[in-house]
Parts: sequence; C-alpha cells; structure tokens
Amino acid sequence: MFVLVNLKAYPCDPVAVAEAAHDVAGSSGVRIAVAPQAADLAAVAETGVETWAQHVSPNEHGSHTGSTLAERAAAAGAEGTLLNHSEKRMTLADIDASLDAAERADLETCVCGNTPAQIGAVAALGPDSVAVEPPELIGGDVSVASADPDIVTDAVAAAEAVDDDIDVYCGAGISTGDDLDAADDLGASGVLLASGVAKADDPKAALEDLVSPLA
Amino acid sequence: MFVLVNLKAYPCDPVAVAEAAHDVAGSSGVRIAVAPQAADLAAVAETGVETWAQHVSPNEHGSHTGSTLAERAAAAGAEGTLLNHSEKRMTLADIDASLDAAERADLETCVCGNTPAQIGAVAALGPDSVAVEPPELIGGDVSVASADPDIVTDAVAAAEAVDDDIDVYCGAGISTGDDLDAADDLGASGVLLASGVAKADDPKAALEDLVSPLA
Amino acid sequence: MFVLVNLKAYPCDPVAVAEAAHDVAGSSGVRIAVAPQAADLAAVAETGVETWAQHVSPNEHGSHTGSTLAERAAAAGAEGTLLNHSEKRMTLADIDASLDAAERADLETCVCGNTPAQIGAVAALGPDSVAVEPPELIGGDVSVASADPDIVTDAVAAAEAVDDDIDVYCGAGISTGDDLDAADDLGASGVLLASGVAKADDPKAALEDLVSPLA
Amino acid sequence: MFVLVNLKAYPCDPVAVAEAAHDVAGSSGVRIAVAPQAADLAAVAETGVETWAQHVSPNEHGSHTGSTLAERAAAAGAEGTLLNHSEKRMTLADIDASLDAAERADLETCVCGNTPAQIGAVAALGPDSVAVEPPELIGGDVSVASADPDIVTDAVAAAEAVDDDIDVYCGAGISTGDDLDAADDLGASGVLLASGVAKADDPKAALEDLVSPLA
Repeated sequence: MFVLVNLKAYPCDPVAVAEAAHDVAGSSGVRIAVAPQAADLAAVAETGVETWAQHVSPNEHGSHTGSTLAERAAAAGAEGTLLNHSEKRMTLADIDASLDAAERADLETCVCGNTPAQIGAVAALGPDSVAVEPPELIGGDVSVASADPDIVTDAVAAAEAVDDDIDVYCGAGISTGDDLDAADDLGASGVLLASGVAKADDPKAALEDLVSPLA
Repeated sequence: MFVLVNLKAYPCDPVAVAEAAHDVAGSSGVRIAVAPQAADLAAVAETGVETWAQHVSPNEHGSHTGSTLAERAAAAGAEGTLLNHSEKRMTLADIDASLDAAERADLETCVCGNTPAQIGAVAALGPDSVAVEPPELIGGDVSVASADPDIVTDAVAAAEAVDDDIDVYCGAGISTGDDLDAADDLGASGVLLASGVAKADDPKAALEDLVSPLA
Repeated sequence: MFVLVNLKAYPCDPVAVAEAAHDVAGSSGVRIAVAPQAADLAAVAETGVETWAQHVSPNEHGSHTGSTLAERAAAAGAEGTLLNHSEKRMTLADIDASLDAAERADLETCVCGNTPAQIGAVAALGPDSVAVEPPELIGGDVSVASADPDIVTDAVAAAEAVDDDIDVYCGAGISTGDDLDAADDLGASGVLLASGVAKADDPKAALEDLVSPLA
Repeated sequence: MFVLVNLKAYPCDPVAVAEAAHDVAGSSGVRIAVAPQAADLAAVAETGVETWAQHVSPNEHGSHTGSTLAERAAAAGAEGTLLNHSEKRMTLADIDASLDAAERADLETCVCGNTPAQIGAVAALGPDSVAVEPPELIGGDVSVASADPDIVTDAVAAAEAVDDDIDVYCGAGISTGDDLDAADDLGASGVLLASGVAKADDPKAALEDLVSPLA
C-alpha cells in the first residue's frame, strides 16, 4: 500500500510533517509520500521523504506567469504529482497535457476522479495511477471505504478495464489503520489522506496508527 | 526606479539570474527584484536578492489543493507578489481576496492591468503598486514606452486619480537602458521585464545595460 | 427606482414571470426588467417587458463555441445585461471587454461587485450602473439594506467618487416594499432581486408588494 | 452520416442558415442539424431544422447566473448538445455533470476531444456520440480526414474499445463532399463543420455540395 499525504493549504509545518513521514516510512517499510504546496517542495524534499506536487501546469516552457511547470517541481525535488484533485479540477485537455509535462520531467502521476466513470475516463489518458475521492466525503470523519465501498470496487474495475497495470488509490475520510485495511480489502493499492495527518496534533503518531496494519 | 524581473516559465536557471540581479542591485544601488515560479522561491531568496511571487492564491488556510498561499510564498522568502498578470488573469473578487491574503502575509503587492481604465480599477482595490502591460506588446522587441507612450501617462493619471501615493510601473518590451529612461520620463516609477533578462545569454550584462541610466 | 428581476436558473416559467412584471410595470409606472437565461431571452422579450441578459461574452464575432455574444442577446430582444454577478465572476479584463461588447450592441450595462472597494473598481471601467451584492446575503431572507446598510452607502460613495452620473443598485435578500424603501433611503437608485419574485407562488403579487412604496 | 453545423459566434444570420439546412436535409434525406448560440435556439428551432445547443451547463436548477441549463435549451427547441468543444473546454467533472443534465432534459449528446486518448476518455462517460477535432486544424482549409487520417481511425478505435454502440464524428476543416466521403471511409458516422457553411456566401449551395456523395 502507498500512502500519500496531501498537505493542501492547511496551517501545518510542512517540514515537521515531512520528517514524521520520513521516520515512519523508514521504521515501517511502508511507502509514504508528502505533497506540500509548490513553494514548500524544496524544503520538504530536503527531509528525504518522497515528495509529490499537488498539481503541475499543462504548460511547456514559455511566456506563462504564475504556473508551476513539471520541470521546476522536479528540480525542487518532487518525484510525482497529483492531477485533477477535486479542489483543482482541470479540463480534460489540460489533464492530458499535464500528463505529458510530467512524463517530460520524469514525475510519477496520479489523476483523481470523483466517480468510477471518471476513473475509467482518466485511466484512458495513461497515468501511472488514479485515485477516487467522492467530494462529499473529503475532509470528513467517515472513510470512503466504509461509507461507500462500492465506489472503490467499481473504480478499481473501471480502471482495470482500461489498463491492467494501473494502480488505484482511494481517498476521502481516511485516517486510521482500519480505514487503510478496508481500502486494501476493496482492491485499492494505496490511499490519499490529508487532514487526518496534516491537522493531527501528533502527525507521527497518526501515521504510525495508519500504517500499523501493514507492519 | 524599481526593476522587477519576471522569470515566467522560461527555461532559464533561476538561481543564476537571481545572483546576477543581486550583484547588479548591489553595484548599482538600483532596487531589483526577481519573480520565479513558486517552486523556485526558496532557492532564489537564498541568493539574497529581493524575491517576488508571480501570483498568490486568494485562499486562506484550508482544504485547497494546488494553490500557493501568500503565507507559504512568504515563508519561502518572497517579499512581494504580482497579481492579475495578463498571463494569469484573475476575477475581480479574487484580486481583492489575494490582496487581503498578501497583506496578512506582509507581502508587497503589484496588480497588473492592460489599459488605463483597468489600472484605475485595480488601484481602487488598494494595492501598493500597479503595472500597465499592453498584452499585444508582451514578449516583443518594442517597448511600451516607445510604442504606446500615452498608455503609460494615461495609466499614471488613472492610478493617481484614485490614490496619490501609489506606484505605477510599466512593462512589455522593456529591455534596454533607453527603455527604462523612457518609462521614467513618462512618469512610471518602475519597470517589469521578463524575456529581456531571463532569455539573455548574459543576464548580468543585460541588467547592467538596463540600469545604466540610473547609475 | 429600477427593479431588475434575475431569474437565475430557477425552475420558474420565465414567460409567466415576464408577463407579471410587464403588467406591474404598466400599472405602477415603475421601471421593471426581467433577466432570464440566454435561451429564454426571445420568449421573455416577446411579452413586452424590458429584458436583460444575465451575462454576455467578452468575445467579438469569430470562432467561439458556447458563448452568448452581446450582439445575439440584443438580437433576441435584450436591452441590457448584468456582468460579473457573484455567480458568474469574470476576470477584470473580461469585464472590460464585455462592456465594450455591450456598447457595440447597444445594451445597457450593470456590473456587480461584492464590496464598496470592488464597486469603485468596476465603476472605473465605465458601465452605466453598478450593483453591490454581498454574496453571503444572496438568496437569503435578510435584505442587504437592513443587514448591512453601510455596505450600500459605502458603495454609493465609492461609485460616485469615480463617476457622478453612475447608477448604484443593491441586491441580496430584497423581497418586500420595505426592503425597496430602505434601499432608496440609503442612496441606491434600484434593486436586484431574484428568489423573492422568481420563486414566489404568485410573482405578480410579490412584485406589487415590492413596488407599493413607489406607487 | 450525420452533419452538424456549428454556427459558433460567426456573424451569419442563424435563421437563414437554419432554413438552408432544413431544405437540404429535406431534399437529400441526410440528417443535418444546426447549433446556434443559446440566444438563437428558439428562432432556429422554429424553422423546423434539428437544433443543437453548443454547450449546456453542468448545473441543476438553482442559484446560478449566466448559464444555460439543459432544461432551458430543450424548452427553446434543442434536441441535442455539444459538450467540451475545443473552444469551450470543460473540466472532466463538469462534462460528467452536463451529461447527466442533458439526460434529464432528454438531449442527445456529443462530447468533443482533441486526440484519440481523449476520445477514449470521454467515451467512458457514456455520451451518445463523440467527436474528434484536432484544434490545430479547426477553422482551416485542410480537412482532418486528409491531413491526419490516423487520428480519425484511432479515435474510432478508442471509442469502440470503450463502447461498441457509440457514434464517432470528426471535425476540423470539413467543407466539401470529398471531405465527407473521406470521413465516412475512415469509419466516422458523421461530421462537425462550421465556417465551411456558416461563412459561405451561399450556405445552401455549400450544404448541397457537402451532402452530394450521400445523395
């Protein structure tokens, strides 16, 4: 199982969370990555944790102001990027172009979708992985794996119908080891989480609890 | 005169340009700032040069993915931010909210507009400075100060009608000391430039030529 | 006082509301206009009521799909258009271009803003009128004129500081004759309303109550 | 073969083109539809021609200003709608929601994409048909079927891999009977065209030439 911690725009210390994630990844052997805002990529990568961007621009080098090119995210230390998160919805053509950009910059990609149909759609664009996150559960206390298990199994089926090798993650409401276990049982090969770690009083303890079923 | 070098998404080495700008600022006594992509803010600020963001989000802390909060731009070393650049047009309500965000994070602000009327409009929102850049001249070889001097004097008049104390910069096609001189004569108190430095074979020489009328 | 009824995307019969508005305008002598969705402009205009668009595109004639040109809104019978409504926020440059488009098509214009500062900003672009609508009050039961009277007087002051002749309307929560009276007392020369009429069981009775202080 | 004439924002008389299309459809037996701007839907539908919207909103009934609901497009006489045209790119989630909206309003749907991969993606969302239009050929003199025949056959393959029953149209540069023939040979079951008819001096003659291979 892959654990991707999206720091969003939470008022956390990104380096402190990154250090906790790096420690827990080391002690548990579980793959854990942290996705900070673009301005924090370099500081987070410096901790040694696997670092992802929350988004990269569909643009190539040129006259573009205020975007984060895949190339600069990679130069700052990112190894992967989320795309089309519910909080950063992209046009279909831009998802396609950002996947090309990520490939040029050698970034691993995870494209989000809200429904199994959307997961099938984004899988057709050839990302490394996809993530299903029902927007109504994001930021809540109820895990997608318990609130709506069918959406996870249907997303896995939709993605695999398009591409056998693709990884399918799930997100929304994930915070405990039980949630991780449930996601695993439903066929997901990873989880996206955010507030459960980024807003925890003790992010390290939260991550240790999360990965405990895998230890 | 203030010189703001927007690195846009050009394939330059942001640290090399920043070091050149820092050197020329030091030797000439001219205020020069560099605006890299968000992922490069920390590395650019580390050179000691005055560092600006190209854009900051209107958002406050919370569940937002893929944006750059003013607070994180500042934490990475930014001292100011552009807003509403022609290549990153914002809604009026978002310009207003990003100005609030910049104030919370203690960032200096420069809001761009395409026409004198738009400059009057953005001046009404209370930024520290405004910049007029006719989009048809951006990235070209002809300076706004020579191609369309009236737009600069009209922008200065429109801004000062709203706020006596506001600084007015001009951009588009600025690359030489003569362009800087012409902008100064038209009442601008600074210039925005991009390709003239960021794409120069020798950014330091380009900056030295640019600031030579002020030495 | 001018009364502009925005039908939004409510499930009302636009022609029935238009006929009611036409009747009440005729019997009361009050200027009342109705703003339906673009697809309903022709049917609404056919009733004889003053008809406004909810939005027009910043585009000129050309290769643009899925937009409503000012020219076609006018051809369908519109005499005016809202711009930059809180539910259809536009970039500053697009507001400017849509004002040009409306002028080409001889449409009267009303640009919305959320705050007095934004009202000052949009007034600088030269519309015929501006409207202040605090988004947190839109669709509610409490009128802006009673909940936040200062925002109306401040908006009037901000607009008049830029342009003596401009009309200032206010919206959000307006539904009764008392609300209209209060808006008038605060210096507004018109009101925008929506659900109070469009979702009323009897739109004609709602309009008659609304304009009763003016009779 | 289905012929869909997108009037875009061209300065044509929509009713005159609609009447020509209606005549040619009647005399040739070919299915021809016309897609005007939203404000012209009612007038175009009145001619009796099959009428399509250029776009419908993902929204349901509610507090939305400046959008065209599927329900109102249908009430004005539309029988189908384009979605995600290159000139009106939508987020993936909005394409999904607009397809739901179109289904509620009983509108036939055609979702556009730029590449075979994007066509596979949109086919996964369950529209009635898809259309491939390479943006670099739109509005030009060279037909997609001659300039880039592989993109058409690849799009047909990508769509059919997802859904056997889906119709695949192609667009960009289509203007003559030869273009229509070539599209047919490549497996397309219809064509989208715009300037070739909408900007023709004699739209009826242009349509007659276009459908001549099918007569």
